[in-house]
Amino acid sequence: MGDSTVGGLRPCSGELDLADQVSRLVEQSKELQESASSLISRTSREEDSLRQRANSLNSTLQNLLSTVRKSNLDSNRSEKLEEELFRARYILSEGDAAAFLPSKSHGRFLRMFLGPINVRASRKDVQLKVKEEYNSFRDRTAYLFLLFPLLLLVSRSCIWNGCLPALPVQLYQAWLLYLYTGLALRENILRVNGSDIRPWWIYHHYFAMAMALISLTWEIEREPDCAQKQKGVLLFLRWAIMQGIAMLLQNRYQRQRLYTRIALGKAGRMDVVWGETAGVEGQLWLLCPILFILQGFEAYVGLLLLKTALVGVTSEWQVITCGILLIIMAVGNFANTVQTLVSKSRVKAKMKKGKSKQELDRQGSSKCQ
Amino acid sequence: MGDSTVGGLRPCSGELDLADQVSRLVEQSKELQESASSLISRTSREEDSLRQRANSLNSTLQNLLSTVRKSNLDSNRSEKLEEELFRARYILSEGDAAAFLPSKSHGRFLRMFLGPINVRASRKDVQLKVKEEYNSFRDRTAYLFLLFPLLLLVSRSCIWNGCLPALPVQLYQAWLLYLYTGLALRENILRVNGSDIRPWWIYHHYFAMAMALISLTWEIEREPDCAQKQKGVLLFLRWAIMQGIAMLLQNRYQRQRLYTRIALGKAGRMDVVWGETAGVEGQLWLLCPILFILQGFEAYVGLLLLKTALVGVTSEWQVITCGILLIIMAVGNFANTVQTLVSKSRVKAKMKKGKSKQELDRQGSSKCQ
Repeated sequence: MGDSTVGGLRPCSGELDLADQVSRLVEQSKELQESASSLISRTSREEDSLRQRANSLNSTLQNLLSTVRKSNLDSNRSEKLEEELFRARYILSEGDAAAFLPSKSHGRFLRMFLGPINVRASRKDVQLKVKEEYNSFRDRTAYLFLLFPLLLLVSRSCIWNGCLPALPVQLYQAWLLYLYTGLALRENILRVNGSDIRPWWIYHHYFAMAMALISLTWEIEREPDCAQKQKGVLLFLRWAIMQGIAMLLQNRYQRQRLYTRIALGKAGRMDVVWGETAGVEGQLWLLCPILFILQGFEAYVGLLLLKTALVGVTSEWQVITCGILLIIMAVGNFANTVQTLVSKSRVKAKMKKGKSKQELDRQGSSKCQ
Repeated sequence: MGDSTVGGLRPCSGELDLADQVSRLVEQSKELQESASSLISRTSREEDSLRQRANSLNSTLQNLLSTVRKSNLDSNRSEKLEEELFRARYILSEGDAAAFLPSKSHGRFLRMFLGPINVRASRKDVQLKVKEEYNSFRDRTAYLFLLFPLLLLVSRSCIWNGCLPALPVQLYQAWLLYLYTGLALRENILRVNGSDIRPWWIYHHYFAMAMALISLTWEIEREPDCAQKQKGVLLFLRWAIMQGIAMLLQNRYQRQRLYTRIALGKAGRMDVVWGETAGVEGQLWLLCPILFILQGFEAYVGLLLLKTALVGVTSEWQVITCGILLIIMAVGNFANTVQTLVSKSRVKAKMKKGKSKQELDRQGSSKCQ
């Protein structure tokens, strides 16, 4: 019993068992397929209806906000209404409902590299994981950003007798290219996931990508006039060290600030404030001057590169282009830092005029109970 | 009536209306938030249970398959059981249930560039859109892959008097770097979405990325011995033209073949058969020799680069590394093409021995009714 027949004249019980199990499996697979497709279609129907509700609430919110602002209510009342509307906006944009708000378009850059794949996470905890990973990526790379040029400069005087060989510099430049591509991709993904990162910081990384790519084609090693030729590279490396220190300070500062803002309920948790920005007193007095000095130094390196090219020692197009790119980045960074500081001080002035957050919350919750 | 009061001693009806609308909006936002979070948690609960069912069915399927293969049933019966099991596997992997099967890990490459964002589409139609876009990306780039080196070679003899300037070549190399990065990212995304693309083709693109990056640092323009120095570049450009033609043929062939296979119900629609592969008679007799010639030419260019470096005319490390990379890619491509051909002919032999597909389907469906 249980042995299979050799000739196969009639199926014995072992064989039947097996055939039974197989057809049961096929049945179960079909059932699973049906439950899966019914779940998917049901979910997408419900999601569509939530999307419609979220959309219409969002546009009602915008309308009410402009009505309140245009109305000639006395300032106390209109501020109260405005604050309630901000509360509604916070509920919509920070809770699970945010997944159903219209998302920002993926943008050309993501489509160029990834195609039309959706990179929006529907669950808030996943979005936060993405944000956290972005922060730790920035932390990790800030150390390397500091370490690599430091190593190059030290080895230059200790091992290479004042003349950098091409390979290590090119490895560093290739790493920069990877770093900026990675940052630009991640920041585009964060933007799709609802972060309010300033567009400039993403453009800034596009420019930096271009510069890293161009600098790869730049012949830096040509023995006779090595010192002359590597002047620009040395300046760039020194600037990179300063930038590395500033990145570490910024990362520390912005994380703390973000957590403070989250705790205060003021910021979406997907907010990223890459680069130059301000708000908390203590570290800001250290960070702001460093940022402005850095931007000045960046522009100075750019101008120096242009000068080298125009004087005619090396008239390679790479030198001119890198010079122009550095100046553009310096000016853009400066303008954006100033803009951020101005809008921040405006918000602060308004907050001083208005009520404290706690009071507002209490009023809000008592009204909605 | 309807005007707002100026002093604000008591709210008039217009103000009340506005306050009413605002508080209704807050209420509706809260309701939406609640529905959203209940939908998300309900869906994720149901998805988890489907995931468990899919997992257990999948492992039962594997077990039954090995039991059937090891059993001493007569070959007719065991083949019939096996075919039913294949049917179950097809249902599981090609329908909506596929979204709940364990996915392949995202892999280091995607994590390096994108972080931990999920790139798996849960709906089959989205997955197919991704696949379609990948195919059209390959089509578009194949034309450019053919056009760019052609333009460079023509301009070299018509405009540049036999000596390529560096900039156009570097632009071409930068484009290659982008192309291979984009392909590698897209193929990794396809793999996560259930495509059975051979790992080699992805590795192949990593090697090609490295080569494009290295060739960017390669000084090709140094007047006195231009002809000698650009020998390798010229060979590479000629190889690229052949490769472009082969890519166009492959794309055409593989699309047709994929659609045939989909129609026959043999292939998952996410299958990608990049590069060298075989199966349909007609065009294969054209494609296969071209592929083998290409691979031979690729290895020849690699060897020539190595020879140039060893003879000592130019002993730059870039020449040696590019030579080695080309040889590795040629050997890998050859091995994978042969493997594909062998496994294909094995499948064909088995199919000839077995029953026709139509017969099998009829039996299957009559049994399951």
